[in-house]
Amino acid sequence: MPYQAPIRDISFTLEYICGLSALEKTGAYPDLSADLVQAILEEGGKFTAQELAPLNRIGDEHGSILKDGMVTTAPGFKEAYAKLVEGGWQGLSFPASAGGMGLPGALGVAFMEMLQSANMAFGLGPMLTMGAIEVLIRVGTDQQKEDYLSRLITGEWSASMNLTEPSAGSDVGAIRTSASPQADGSYLLKGQKIFITWGEHDCTDNIVHLVLARTDEAPGGTRGLSLFLVPKFLPDEAGEFTIRNDAWAIGLEHKLGIHGSPTCVMEYGGNTGAVGYLLGEEMRGMAMMFIMMNSARMNVGTQGVGVAERAWQQAFAYAQDRKQGRVADQNQGPASIIHHPDVRRMLVDGKAKIAAARAITYSCAIAADLAAHGDSEAVRERAKRREDFLTPLAKSYGSDIALEVTSMGVQVHGGMGFIEETGAAQHFRDARITPIYEGTNAIQAMDLIGRKLSMQGGLLFSEMLKEINVCASDCAARSDERLQGIAKHLAEAASALQRMTAWMAGPARDPADALSGATVFQTMCAETVGGHYLAVGALAADQQLQAKDPDQDAEFLQGRIDLAHYFAGAVLAAVPGMDVSISIGADTIFALSERKLAP
Amino acid sequence: MPYQAPIRDISFTLEYICGLSALEKTGAYPDLSADLVQAILEEGGKFTAQELAPLNRIGDEHGSILKDGMVTTAPGFKEAYAKLVEGGWQGLSFPASAGGMGLPGALGVAFMEMLQSANMAFGLGPMLTMGAIEVLIRVGTDQQKEDYLSRLITGEWSASMNLTEPSAGSDVGAIRTSASPQADGSYLLKGQKIFITWGEHDCTDNIVHLVLARTDEAPGGTRGLSLFLVPKFLPDEAGEFTIRNDAWAIGLEHKLGIHGSPTCVMEYGGNTGAVGYLLGEEMRGMAMMFIMMNSARMNVGTQGVGVAERAWQQAFAYAQDRKQGRVADQNQGPASIIHHPDVRRMLVDGKAKIAAARAITYSCAIAADLAAHGDSEAVRERAKRREDFLTPLAKSYGSDIALEVTSMGVQVHGGMGFIEETGAAQHFRDARITPIYEGTNAIQAMDLIGRKLSMQGGLLFSEMLKEINVCASDCAARSDERLQGIAKHLAEAASALQRMTAWMAGPARDPADALSGATVFQTMCAETVGGHYLAVGALAADQQLQAKDPDQDAEFLQGRIDLAHYFAGAVLAAVPGMDVSISIGADTIFALSERKLAP
Repeated sequence: MPYQAPIRDISFTLEYICGLSALEKTGAYPDLSADLVQAILEEGGKFTAQELAPLNRIGDEHGSILKDGMVTTAPGFKEAYAKLVEGGWQGLSFPASAGGMGLPGALGVAFMEMLQSANMAFGLGPMLTMGAIEVLIRVGTDQQKEDYLSRLITGEWSASMNLTEPSAGSDVGAIRTSASPQADGSYLLKGQKIFITWGEHDCTDNIVHLVLARTDEAPGGTRGLSLFLVPKFLPDEAGEFTIRNDAWAIGLEHKLGIHGSPTCVMEYGGNTGAVGYLLGEEMRGMAMMFIMMNSARMNVGTQGVGVAERAWQQAFAYAQDRKQGRVADQNQGPASIIHHPDVRRMLVDGKAKIAAARAITYSCAIAADLAAHGDSEAVRERAKRREDFLTPLAKSYGSDIALEVTSMGVQVHGGMGFIEETGAAQHFRDARITPIYEGTNAIQAMDLIGRKLSMQGGLLFSEMLKEINVCASDCAARSDERLQGIAKHLAEAASALQRMTAWMAGPARDPADALSGATVFQTMCAETVGGHYLAVGALAADQQLQAKDPDQDAEFLQGRIDLAHYFAGAVLAAVPGMDVSISIGADTIFALSERKLAP
Repeated sequence: MPYQAPIRDISFTLEYICGLSALEKTGAYPDLSADLVQAILEEGGKFTAQELAPLNRIGDEHGSILKDGMVTTAPGFKEAYAKLVEGGWQGLSFPASAGGMGLPGALGVAFMEMLQSANMAFGLGPMLTMGAIEVLIRVGTDQQKEDYLSRLITGEWSASMNLTEPSAGSDVGAIRTSASPQADGSYLLKGQKIFITWGEHDCTDNIVHLVLARTDEAPGGTRGLSLFLVPKFLPDEAGEFTIRNDAWAIGLEHKLGIHGSPTCVMEYGGNTGAVGYLLGEEMRGMAMMFIMMNSARMNVGTQGVGVAERAWQQAFAYAQDRKQGRVADQNQGPASIIHHPDVRRMLVDGKAKIAAARAITYSCAIAADLAAHGDSEAVRERAKRREDFLTPLAKSYGSDIALEVTSMGVQVHGGMGFIEETGAAQHFRDARITPIYEGTNAIQAMDLIGRKLSMQGGLLFSEMLKEINVCASDCAARSDERLQGIAKHLAEAASALQRMTAWMAGPARDPADALSGATVFQTMCAETVGGHYLAVGALAADQQLQAKDPDQDAEFLQGRIDLAHYFAGAVLAAVPGMDVSISIGADTIFALSERKLAP
């Protein structure tokens, strides 16, 4: 099934919902302009649709093969990777000073969405490399930057992120991999890591493993962790990377989805010891991990949007093509199923949820850009708060709707959706990992009601709520009835969110009660914020329509208002009904003891 | 992962929620007694857990093989099928006069749940055979009963149901398979059928295909369809079934799940013509199909409950076993993840939804039993109305929660859930077919707001609502605070359902508006009715607890109240919030034209 980058949706979201052009004023992106953005999106759309999308099913069918410690990726992956490098896509959103294109992270996220739509298994490689690049930019020594960073930014080499161990998944503090200092300043690592995405493959000449490990005599728990750079190939005396390090893939997982992505069991130092170099300071591994994690979380949200968009496009095309049954006003014969109200609603619902999730992830990315490059400290601080607030929502909502929309994609196909050759099932399988990795969605919810809620006296939430209420008032003041409908449901959702935020933040709130409602509260947040961003887009569309620019795509702009209007009725209107479920309390949950639960 | 039949839950549901013992008074089941029910559940639980559950993963890994028109099922399937026949399980709920055990259909559904939990792919075979048995009981000639029915009831032969063709899925009227009468009264069939479950296999000596086809000169659409019995082997002159009929599997589908179930492309009459015999009257195929369909729909709901229960048990066991992180009141070290509020909530949520869906499907089954055997016409008519009302809810809700709970099962396992060897992913894949086959859930919703809503002036709904309100009042009158909480949310949900039922049934309601909200309305119905049944169970548990019988399992009974209490807060309380989404209207949906939707 072909993929077509939804460039109108993406550029509208970037510009009119998230305010991309605000970044031009920062001076941090001298080349940034509307024309450049358009050119990048079009080129990115062409590259991903033409080179990567056709390999999606091939990757699913072939998977990767591990033999003698070497992984061979699916046919075509290596060649496609070379084209990714050739196009300089890996460095899109990294500073020109480090060899990148010097464009905003938000544009990087837009490209990332296309990459994930086209080929989620393939896209994981460049996505993991991005996290490593961010760490090296922040804490790499000059030598590390020269040796590794430059080659990661070109895409010539890739990176992997090594956290999880058999007994340490969400509980990073339980990590046991050890690192012993050597006389030359390097370390010897020993330990096993699991679920290592693109830990070994044949697409690049070298792989830079970032490994969390515990130095000798470091304390237990997360405090004792340090981050190490462990290259697959070490430099020889001539400075060429020819010496095979003792870092090997010893197993490949047999997974539900993303078959094209090699998920490795990595053995470090099983023989002579794996040589690694400390990144940043010792026992600052957690801080470094959070640099990678924040980027990864936003990217997983984007991945959810990407795979949902791909599944949606396939369902949309099928619904237009497939004729079955009749509809009330078409007596001439079988109608395309898109004319059936239920099928149409599924497609509209999916489109609206993708649009909301896209707006959240892109807003998060622009906030991150402004947090780094805003032209005043106040702007940067405010943007940082927004980034912090949106990160768990981007990750969880992007992945939640990925499950929902890819499942809808199967459903629209009817029985054909259950047949693997149709391709709808692959998206459903692929998407299932997104609520799990880079911190399960429950971990995101804990972050939201724990760290994020209490930061700066709740300012992250109150700023957002204020913005939503202003938007609702703006909608109410427009003459378009759809906008007035949106205003009502948005204001009511915001009011519910305010109420439940106060409940969560109550001084006497038992943590167990708060945790028992955290996931539902996170959904309430995401739906309200998503509906808000769609409303922001609807306001902009309305304004443009009022201006009656002869060049405008009036149908598209009307569609943006229709989409926000649908979301308000179908999603926002149900938000206030979540109160009881959020505040249900630990007693109600834990009343069901293990013995009561047992079959 | 082992499976343990949840006998306490099943027998409590049968007796205290659905009122199984009311069937004893009908006289239709002379052997029926509480002891017999217990014995059947225990034996059924043992058989399914010991013989079928261990083959579940084997079936998934091996699938079936088609060679020279013959299908070989996965290792162990044939032997297990022989044990199913030996135990007489296929005939459990069919009349003793026809060779069955003469027990209620509700008990058959309880066994069906265990069968589907143990091995969904395997369970589909006996499930499809049941539909054919019902048709033969109702319309088979004496000869057909002697030749076929008797061998289907023993399980010696199996049956398949042949409706779908490449251009006729949900639109049965588009069927093109033809049937031409022969001089001897038989017909020659010609046509291709797809998605034929257990259409060919090696577990029985003969297979009885029930095939919808169009006789010569019959009109188009559904009116012209007749049902034919097409055996794989035809009788020779000695009456032995030795002559291979021209009915062949020509393909096996490569599916997302239920790999152990052979899904065939069947070619009828590709060579000499397939000999078939008319079942019942000509051009009454649709009526016959609905006999099979009603049984199949209830069974698919049961299948959803079954696969959800299996996935739930696996998640529960994992959550008890898997240690990670710490919890507030346990500073001693890593805690089992079941102590984390979010994980506990996922498990409680799954358990409550399974219990609600089980109560709906079993209530539907008992209503069907009473509709056939009630001791007065008034009882039978009332029961028939209830069966009609509950059938679409059983099918849709059972399958909806199957998706939800199997997905939760993956999530509880974290990264391990995405690895196929863990087994959680199989349930997630298997369950995905249930909202699709035997009428998609949208088709169920159309049935609910179309046929069912208007029957007898809305009596199906008003009777149910009255019953729910009585239950809510009963709950309010108890001293237990949990029951009072349930009363409030149940009454509010019922009131919302009443409101939206009136909206749907409004005389000026545009069908497109009704259809646009049908699926959400169906969910509102199912959640309200499911919550109601859980409340009925909670009332019964409360009553038993008051009686203080020293033999009672007080912990289990308290658990039933806790479960209903959780469901009321987490699910029922959100029901009134669905109003706007249900009444959103076709204009809001269809405003998004194909051009506005296009990427």
